[in-house]
Amino acid sequence: MNHTYQYPRAALTVDCVVFGFDDGSGALQVLLIRRGIAPFKDHWALPGGFVRVEETLDEAARRELAEETNLSTVFLEQLYTFGTVDRDPRERVVSVAYYALTKPADHTTAASTDAAEASWFPVSDVPPLAFDHATILDTALARLRGKLRYEPIGFELLPPKFTLTQLQRLYESVLGTEIDKRNFRKKVLGHELLIPLKETHRDGPHRPAQLFRFDPEKYERLKKKGFLFEL
Amino acid sequence: MNHTYQYPRAALTVDCVVFGFDDGSGALQVLLIRRGIAPFKDHWALPGGFVRVEETLDEAARRELAEETNLSTVFLEQLYTFGTVDRDPRERVVSVAYYALTKPADHTTAASTDAAEASWFPVSDVPPLAFDHATILDTALARLRGKLRYEPIGFELLPPKFTLTQLQRLYESVLGTEIDKRNFRKKVLGHELLIPLKETHRDGPHRPAQLFRFDPEKYERLKKKGFLFEL
Repeated sequence: MNHTYQYPRAALTVDCVVFGFDDGSGALQVLLIRRGIAPFKDHWALPGGFVRVEETLDEAARRELAEETNLSTVFLEQLYTFGTVDRDPRERVVSVAYYALTKPADHTTAASTDAAEASWFPVSDVPPLAFDHATILDTALARLRGKLRYEPIGFELLPPKFTLTQLQRLYESVLGTEIDKRNFRKKVLGHELLIPLKETHRDGPHRPAQLFRFDPEKYERLKKKGFLFEL
Repeated sequence: MNHTYQYPRAALTVDCVVFGFDDGSGALQVLLIRRGIAPFKDHWALPGGFVRVEETLDEAARRELAEETNLSTVFLEQLYTFGTVDRDPRERVVSVAYYALTKPADHTTAASTDAAEASWFPVSDVPPLAFDHATILDTALARLRGKLRYEPIGFELLPPKFTLTQLQRLYESVLGTEIDKRNFRKKVLGHELLIPLKETHRDGPHRPAQLFRFDPEKYERLKKKGFLFEL
């Protein structure tokens, strides 16, 4: 026997939960598109679409992101595959979900192809979503919260140069808790993974705050030696 | 428009990495099947097979496990979806991988359907595997190592009643490191998630050791209050 499973086959899609952090409002945000076609026409949804038979899943996710949101160079990781039998009213569709982290400078809302419109929403206040996209968003949020504590991925949501206050605000926003400033600074500087810069940043009437950048090369070196990030 | 993506479509499979812990040898083991059909006929592979259009992904994984290994009531969690374009010589096949944790009493090697034979192998000494199953196994091992530290899933690999020595041996085997006995016991008892039993267990010439069982209900209660397991 040299053939595989016969038809009917499920269709395969990718859907992307794109997170951004708005330092002004201090809110974690998610990028949604308004669907231009049925089903769920005019509903808000996660950007995504059908996987082509000649592309990998990662390629499909990056292609859909580029087509529907103009985002291209972002942190992108596979999240989970959703395969409830009736999740799409048309027919059986299995969706491989991804989550992406964007820096503030990448925030763009240009839409194209199937998306009539794209817009950022605070994760605490999203409109009703098409399909099972609310479940996918919840799963992505749980993953982000879990990962933030044990991997230095928060930096993907900040500009390349940031203050410790910005970093703390990001952690507080994603984790949904207040964090003790002294403990936080002690921990975050204790890793010696932040490079202090000569530059400072003035935020409103406060005195100028030191800017830092994350040192990903040092993290990779330490990780190989068994170092475990924790915050 | 009310139809979805046209053909050709990828075929969809599930593959399962089934872990077991052999307390005698102290080795983490994986259950493999010897393929009875082409491609990779007679090669060792992970148990798995094609997803039916009317079943969920979880259902497909449980069905394949039952058919190929006779395992039914195990801890089963989705791992990652593998979608390299040429991972199957027949045609495009995307595989949703799962990992399962079994208790020693569940260890069975009865094979049926597509599997000519099923057998446990120490993860440190597996034969060459069919398809990209070596990559899937590596991914599952990394997930298990990561999760073991932050979630009480190790107990899924032990009998319901176990000694602290058995628990430590399991951690050492999966993480591949020696662990300081005093620190380990302090941490593991500090959680107050282990219920000491009246019974003891005699392991060779040593004096009888106290048996414990894990308290999953207490863990769920603590987790809801924000408790974070760590070991």
